[in-house]
Amino acid sequence: MKSLKWEKGILLLLDQTLLPNKIDYIYCQDYMTVAEAIRRLQVRGAPAIGAAAAFGIVLGAKAAAISAANVIEFRDKVLVVADTLQQTRPTAVNLFWAIKRMLGILDKFEDGSDIGKMIARLEQEAVIIAQEDEQVNRKISKNGALLFTKPVSILTHCNAGALATVALGTALGVIRETHSQGNVLRVYADETRPLLQGARLTAWELMQEKIPVTLITDNMAGWVMKKGLVQAVIVGADRIALNGDVANKIGTYSVAVLAKEHNIPFYVAAPLSTFDITINSGDSIPIEERDRSEVLQYAGINTAPEGVTVFNPAFDVTPSNLVTAIITEAGVFQAPYDVKIRQIFQLKG
Amino acid sequence: MKSLKWEKGILLLLDQTLLPNKIDYIYCQDYMTVAEAIRRLQVRGAPAIGAAAAFGIVLGAKAAAISAANVIEFRDKVLVVADTLQQTRPTAVNLFWAIKRMLGILDKFEDGSDIGKMIARLEQEAVIIAQEDEQVNRKISKNGALLFTKPVSILTHCNAGALATVALGTALGVIRETHSQGNVLRVYADETRPLLQGARLTAWELMQEKIPVTLITDNMAGWVMKKGLVQAVIVGADRIALNGDVANKIGTYSVAVLAKEHNIPFYVAAPLSTFDITINSGDSIPIEERDRSEVLQYAGINTAPEGVTVFNPAFDVTPSNLVTAIITEAGVFQAPYDVKIRQIFQLKG
Repeated sequence: MKSLKWEKGILLLLDQTLLPNKIDYIYCQDYMTVAEAIRRLQVRGAPAIGAAAAFGIVLGAKAAAISAANVIEFRDKVLVVADTLQQTRPTAVNLFWAIKRMLGILDKFEDGSDIGKMIARLEQEAVIIAQEDEQVNRKISKNGALLFTKPVSILTHCNAGALATVALGTALGVIRETHSQGNVLRVYADETRPLLQGARLTAWELMQEKIPVTLITDNMAGWVMKKGLVQAVIVGADRIALNGDVANKIGTYSVAVLAKEHNIPFYVAAPLSTFDITINSGDSIPIEERDRSEVLQYAGINTAPEGVTVFNPAFDVTPSNLVTAIITEAGVFQAPYDVKIRQIFQLKG
Repeated sequence: MKSLKWEKGILLLLDQTLLPNKIDYIYCQDYMTVAEAIRRLQVRGAPAIGAAAAFGIVLGAKAAAISAANVIEFRDKVLVVADTLQQTRPTAVNLFWAIKRMLGILDKFEDGSDIGKMIARLEQEAVIIAQEDEQVNRKISKNGALLFTKPVSILTHCNAGALATVALGTALGVIRETHSQGNVLRVYADETRPLLQGARLTAWELMQEKIPVTLITDNMAGWVMKKGLVQAVIVGADRIALNGDVANKIGTYSVAVLAKEHNIPFYVAAPLSTFDITINSGDSIPIEERDRSEVLQYAGINTAPEGVTVFNPAFDVTPSNLVTAIITEAGVFQAPYDVKIRQIFQLKG
């Protein structure tokens, strides 16, 4: 079950809001449909959003070419497309990373270039981004599995699986690889309110692969740790700052504090495209607040009194001092994170 | 809105599973209906369960009197009633406390007593238990409010309000009184999965009284603390051991750990009837595990893949070292709790 497919110039997005009850793909023939799918969380997960946006640029560029008189006009129109896609969600940096990379391709062409060739090159780049994500996840999985030398039970939050990426997943990629090596006893999946990505997506993904999974509500994580039921936590990330602070799905910070209290290692698995080397700390990461209806309703049914005030941040920031290690395709990073991250990205210290 | 009323020999229980969408009372004319209402959480909250069970004993005793040839037979039949009521839920000790107190009344009568008089005395005692709960909550509220000398925002978990008791509430009683003194800026209510007592009951109760309330999902509590949005936590309790360990709704332990991490005081408000002086620590408190469907569904709609394994403990235990103070009708207790509790209950040290 792929989160996205590129078939004959059409982007197919698995509608993750319908899982696990219904498997349905959205056929995106224009970039507005892609933008709307990102905004509605029909496609979600930082790496998957990045790849979807790259294909969104391709679709937008094709439409732009129809009415553009020349390369300058074409570039301007694609910038409008990029802007629309960028404004769908503010926190996951992979979205901006993928769009920037796509626009970088355009910049390499001179003003007199053939627009058809430019589009062909954009499409090639989007396909490369998607393919790279799969390769990157494979490396992350292998690097992460090295952390486990005996069988353990692992807690995860939200969904950082195949559905959140182009394939395999980051946190669930590590769990898959570790399981194949015989070192996963059981996964405890937080249901992850308000949108239940843990219940709907993670539990479903793991069951498909016959990895033992126990579903819990988010408020059970502390008790599960206290009872000694898990020996490690692995989560994904939506944006990682230069100092190693990690923005991820709301609730991740609570899990990290609980892991510290119980001396359980707290691992983050993420590709280098999730690092935002333009910001020094998590304080600068914009946190998306989503509609109050997500908290007020459960499965479409009102569960709270009408008119109640709601706080609905979609993400939180886990300070790097709570992070035991960050698992990337370039290896497993440990504190001091800023030194390692500067080194990997070849920044001055 | 009263959680329970005793009218002309009938126990009216507000069906809390239907709130806030529907206000409906269950008319209990026999003890089995009371037992079922406790088991199904139509009435819930440790003190409310205790009072409901006391009236259940009255209803059972009236039925027993019809077929009992003498006082000995009558007592035996009431013991069966007591046993049924006791088996409804294992964790909240007020249930056992109230039933024991009711059976103690029976023991005071000699074998040749008039059964009608015994029943009248039982009914009187149940009414006293209910009235006492209201008085006790008033004292808890006043004692708790003394802890707040300037306006603060307070986080609470589950519902320890008027609905969880006969009137006023324990944790919400303290919040009500503190608010009336001008020292509550806002209450943050955890929604409290799986059964959403925070969203359905606490938010509703506070809105009725025009106390500012913000509803959050359970996994937002840590982030709310990190953002400095709350300066105190107050929760209720289902059973408190001699060493001050507190059993309360699942998720309470996580909140306590998070409060410690943020140097936020963590208060427990509970009547003396919630203390179990027969056990030394929380390790001996039986934790109810409820049906997996509570985690898998909401309002009958599946939100997780069929057949997934679920862990569904209804309570957890917060060790006393995470508890800043326990607010009771006999004053505010602080560590070392065992010394204070032994003193209050006049136990040997």
